Amino acid sequence: MERRLDIELRALRSDLLQMASLAETSIGKAVKALVVRDLALAEEVFAAENEINHLEIAVDDRCMKILALHQPEARDLRFITMSFKINSDLERIGDQAINIVERVTELLKEPPLKPLIDLPRMAQLAQHMLRDSLDAFVQGDAEMAHDVCRRDDQVDELDDQLFRELTTYMIQDSRSIARAMNLILVSRHLERVADHATNIAEEVIYMVQGKNIKHHAGQEE
Amino acid sequence: MERRLDIELRALRSDLLQMASLAETSIGKAVKALVVRDLALAEEVFAAENEINHLEIAVDDRCMKILALHQPEARDLRFITMSFKINSDLERIGDQAINIVERVTELLKEPPLKPLIDLPRMAQLAQHMLRDSLDAFVQGDAEMAHDVCRRDDQVDELDDQLFRELTTYMIQDSRSIARAMNLILVSRHLERVADHATNIAEEVIYMVQGKNIKHHAGQEE
Repeated sequence: MERRLDIELRALRSDLLQMASLAETSIGKAVKALVVRDLALAEEVFAAENEINHLEIAVDDRCMKILALHQPEARDLRFITMSFKINSDLERIGDQAINIVERVTELLKEPPLKPLIDLPRMAQLAQHMLRDSLDAFVQGDAEMAHDVCRRDDQVDELDDQLFRELTTYMIQDSRSIARAMNLILVSRHLERVADHATNIAEEVIYMVQGKNIKHHAGQEE
Repeated sequence: MERRLDIELRALRSDLLQMASLAETSIGKAVKALVVRDLALAEEVFAAENEINHLEIAVDDRCMKILALHQPEARDLRFITMSFKINSDLERIGDQAINIVERVTELLKEPPLKPLIDLPRMAQLAQHMLRDSLDAFVQGDAEMAHDVCRRDDQVDELDDQLFRELTTYMIQDSRSIARAMNLILVSRHLERVADHATNIAEEVIYMVQGKNIKHHAGQEE
């Protein structure tokens, strides 16, 4: 017979996966709103963020109740404390989607500055990292989690590259400044999403291997 | 006789206060490095961040051990789950100090763009919010925590104001672009510090009043 605790843990996992799915979709929609110049998509991001915020509170409550009622041990305990942290990362990814939408709202007031290649690419990378970090969590797969950590560098490089390119635009034509700045901020927000996915992956490695690789990422490669 | 659990909780609180103190000092030093144009201060920020990172891991371990060994209940349990979250916010404030130092390193390669009034003011506000959020935590003072949440708006306003002002500089003189952008990013990082302090304050209100005000901040005023 399944333990009552296992049923609770499954519900917890399910809530986190739903949040992650909403967060991933929101990032995609926020950047798509920019690419196809459609603010209707932005509205959907606001609705999803609202849902993510409610789930965040529900997940915290659920974790507290499990700790209080079941006094879980060892691996179960680590799973719950990790859920607290993943919960917080997912909520902040939702915030980043809103930050992007706010920049997109400004950007759509003017004609496009340049063809958008790098930002959709960054969004895809960050979304993929997020999905894999949650898969690694569900499957307890430390190898997949390590792979997520490694990919963070690609996103950082794209962010740096875009920063330099857009600075050049600004220097060449002052009319491009507002748009270039807003694009730089979108890039920064995507880079933050990838950071949160990396945080989640680091937590997974900690959960699986019982060692904390935070602040040492990459050194052991 | 004091419970073993109380001794553990006191040690946990002490670690968090030490982290907060390091984080607060780092923010101050990072901005002071810019104002007095002294990169030696930046080195101190790197050293402090290293220490914060070690404390973060120690605090997580301590929380896990308390949960596993003492199976605390009610208010003690809430204190520990909250410590997990505060720990994470403090570590990210340390990251923001590093982000600021990286911008300052760039900024000090060129002459100052303008007298710096708003950034030191923002840093002070954010540092003060951080200190008060930890005081509210230690004293279980929900009123003080509410006050921290309210002050977040002032920092947001200064950030917006600086963004507009620096955009004007960039438009007027393309030689100011790189410096203005770096100053805008410093401002963004300080705004993030205030956000983390607000997160901590919201957690305090939850701990004290047992209600979650997240995502509703301000609505009840």
